[in-house]
Amino acid sequence: MKEVERVKNDLVIANRILAREEVADAYGHVSVRNPDNPRSFFISRSLAPELVTPDDIVELDLEGNPVGSDERPLYLERFIHGSIYEARPDVTAVVHAHAEDVLPFGIANGTPLRPVIHSGSFIGAHVPVWDIADHFGDTNLLVSNVEQARDLAKTLADHNVALMRGHGFAAASRSLIEVVRMSVYLPRNARALLGARLVGGDIKFLSEGEIEARNEKAYGPYSTATWRAWEYWANKCGCGRLVSRSQDKK
Amino acid sequence: MKEVERVKNDLVIANRILAREEVADAYGHVSVRNPDNPRSFFISRSLAPELVTPDDIVELDLEGNPVGSDERPLYLERFIHGSIYEARPDVTAVVHAHAEDVLPFGIANGTPLRPVIHSGSFIGAHVPVWDIADHFGDTNLLVSNVEQARDLAKTLADHNVALMRGHGFAAASRSLIEVVRMSVYLPRNARALLGARLVGGDIKFLSEGEIEARNEKAYGPYSTATWRAWEYWANKCGCGRLVSRSQDKK
Amino acid sequence: MKEVERVKNDLVIANRILAREEVADAYGHVSVRNPDNPRSFFISRSLAPELVTPDDIVELDLEGNPVGSDERPLYLERFIHGSIYEARPDVTAVVHAHAEDVLPFGIANGTPLRPVIHSGSFIGAHVPVWDIADHFGDTNLLVSNVEQARDLAKTLADHNVALMRGHGFAAASRSLIEVVRMSVYLPRNARALLGARLVGGDIKFLSEGEIEARNEKAYGPYSTATWRAWEYWANKCGCGRLVSRSQDKK
Amino acid sequence: MKEVERVKNDLVIANRILAREEVADAYGHVSVRNPDNPRSFFISRSLAPELVTPDDIVELDLEGNPVGSDERPLYLERFIHGSIYEARPDVTAVVHAHAEDVLPFGIANGTPLRPVIHSGSFIGAHVPVWDIADHFGDTNLLVSNVEQARDLAKTLADHNVALMRGHGFAAASRSLIEVVRMSVYLPRNARALLGARLVGGDIKFLSEGEIEARNEKAYGPYSTATWRAWEYWANKCGCGRLVSRSQDKK
Repeated sequence: MKEVERVKNDLVIANRILAREEVADAYGHVSVRNPDNPRSFFISRSLAPELVTPDDIVELDLEGNPVGSDERPLYLERFIHGSIYEARPDVTAVVHAHAEDVLPFGIANGTPLRPVIHSGSFIGAHVPVWDIADHFGDTNLLVSNVEQARDLAKTLADHNVALMRGHGFAAASRSLIEVVRMSVYLPRNARALLGARLVGGDIKFLSEGEIEARNEKAYGPYSTATWRAWEYWANKCGCGRLVSRSQDKK
Repeated sequence: MKEVERVKNDLVIANRILAREEVADAYGHVSVRNPDNPRSFFISRSLAPELVTPDDIVELDLEGNPVGSDERPLYLERFIHGSIYEARPDVTAVVHAHAEDVLPFGIANGTPLRPVIHSGSFIGAHVPVWDIADHFGDTNLLVSNVEQARDLAKTLADHNVALMRGHGFAAASRSLIEVVRMSVYLPRNARALLGARLVGGDIKFLSEGEIEARNEKAYGPYSTATWRAWEYWANKCGCGRLVSRSQDKK
Repeated sequence: MKEVERVKNDLVIANRILAREEVADAYGHVSVRNPDNPRSFFISRSLAPELVTPDDIVELDLEGNPVGSDERPLYLERFIHGSIYEARPDVTAVVHAHAEDVLPFGIANGTPLRPVIHSGSFIGAHVPVWDIADHFGDTNLLVSNVEQARDLAKTLADHNVALMRGHGFAAASRSLIEVVRMSVYLPRNARALLGARLVGGDIKFLSEGEIEARNEKAYGPYSTATWRAWEYWANKCGCGRLVSRSQDKK
Repeated sequence: MKEVERVKNDLVIANRILAREEVADAYGHVSVRNPDNPRSFFISRSLAPELVTPDDIVELDLEGNPVGSDERPLYLERFIHGSIYEARPDVTAVVHAHAEDVLPFGIANGTPLRPVIHSGSFIGAHVPVWDIADHFGDTNLLVSNVEQARDLAKTLADHNVALMRGHGFAAASRSLIEVVRMSVYLPRNARALLGARLVGGDIKFLSEGEIEARNEKAYGPYSTATWRAWEYWANKCGCGRLVSRSQDKK
């Protein structure tokens, strides 16, 4: 399989995983940068992630315009993806979704969303909250153009995740597998933190040193531990037969 | 397909979606106004929404009496639907249900149920709470006659949703697809708000301007974004093959 | 079908419903009084409710001994059932289970478990909490003999449900369908009350008059509304084909 | 079936149960001591528990090295198992997992995780919390070598469960069936305790006498009550046909 085909195949799996793990529902989307052209990316046409097949993948440029003649309806918020790829050359994959248990941390300010469990470390030591109202006033809360998307990317800065007030989150990573993993563990970390609030007393967050240590070791996209999760989630969402490991990566 | 047939077909899908999304269980019902006669509406006979098929749809007048000779048992609370259609010419579809996570806001008064997430905007800036005990004293809490239903419709007034104390909610919308979407996101908005209470600190609700902006744009029943959800939910509840788009609507 | 056969058939359905609705897991049991002999009752042999078939039903006397020569292992806590039938001639069916969301109210004393939603009315205005330690000291918490079971029945008195501290609940009703319905809505009422705690402020419980009004009307085991739930739950747990309505009851 | 084959067969079932009951996801593992050699144990190769089959079982020595020539990737944290078997001759089976509802108690210190429900008694009167940072500073939180694993085993001491701060738990028991049961009821006990926090007021934990009484009676791995759960969980996760009872144990 050619690399670009493998990437599209993995994007289908990623869509299905995010649906099955309840990160996305009718809404939410995941994209991957074109390995042959860093100025474009692949994403589904406007379709619920659970229903995405290879034929639904479209190629968009960083301003959100289709590359070629595809005229099918697109995600309204596709600008989020382009603007993050533009601002972050290190990023290869982006998720925007509304996973339910993440939402409270974009609404109330009593407890910051920070890593409390080891699998939540990937969100990084600081998760900024972007409020579209700060620069754009009363909107329908959707990131509907490049200007808004660039503002979000500016808040994301060099972090891995930004919460979007009253809306959801945007997550960025160096690989598709990693952005999926982060998107699955982000709500789990949120639930653990909500539970800790109920337990009461002092909350012990991961230290900055621990967060760094986790990024350094053992968790690349093709490591034994990461691959185990990808394979598991793909099977769980009915895509087990589609899983294939890139030939040139270990 | 004739419009009236399409409407009944969509009503079956709506029943199944509400069951699958856990808005309804054995109880709860959804109706749609007859497109050929604004003084009657379609609703299932007394049956759990998950089990509704086209043959179960009956036509009732606004006082809750069957149009024609159907003698099958009816929902006891069918009066809710008729009285809302009577009071609200702008309304085409009504849901009454007991979605679990909405219930606390009809029981305790510490936090009003207002939109905190963008998909919750459709419930509107204010969600009144109707307490049947206020005008009818000790009842079995069910809306069992036209008088009670009209009282509920009066509390609903020109809002989109009314909570019913210790019981559930009534939701009204200009289309079937929209009332289903609102009924699915109402409990999600409630959960996000409960989570925000646990996060602690100040809660940022959607502003009135944001709520208005969302109603103005992009979210009609046949818009790309809304249709995506309808198609997704229909597939999820096993009704994918029944989905058809009205010919005369975009 | 003879009445005794119909009762056993319904008992199988009841077992499956309680499993599917997560009232019971590996543990928990439901019984029904023998319609031909008020001094005995039917219950499954020791088996998880989800797996119960007609062949697993045994007949026990009110002291928990098998009627006839059945030697299969029995539920250790079968005494609960016999002692409630003994103390309460009005009772035809009993459930003992550990539905998870009911447990907190038997552990902490900050909020009494009382009806807050209309479908929770059946638990009655007062739900006593029985603590086995009060009269029996340090035990394994299981109701292992007639003496303990009679003590529980004494606390239950003429109520519909008793919580068992650190353990679960016992529910008693005049029909199998009703005890199943109550057991399904008991945890739902508990969840609504926990949610109301999180909403904060004052909690409005159902009034005594409302609880009475609900018992008087519309909710007998073969009423339209109750039958709708039984039919729905039976279908949901895969027992739709087993549902049959008693010929002599409406 | 030879005892060693039966043990491996049960280990496959145990993996599947832990996955189905959401104790494990892509991560988490269960092992059993080799009945023919107390210095080695069986565990899956690096694979999500839901996917484990008999061919995936490997044999490791107490330092985590494969016995024989197996070269397939192994669980990084396999050292946890070996070190517990080394320190605790009474232990036959070990689980390490990250069941979500247990996590809060390893993060916040406001409420100790102690038994509040009878099925939670098996975790014992005291559940120590091990923080890898105490002796090893900033790590990736994984137990990656024998030294760390022995430190964890030292904190576990003669208890049944140790929480691991920001990570999960390790559970040890005298049989595979018992360690699975404990791992399933550990999160349930945690949820009941979180619920009790929400109920408010005083929380009644199981007394030490009650915990002891439960260990003494009726709950060996082949007792009627325990076997009922094993059989139920095995059926639920699709392994009903694999269940077989050891010939020489009752």
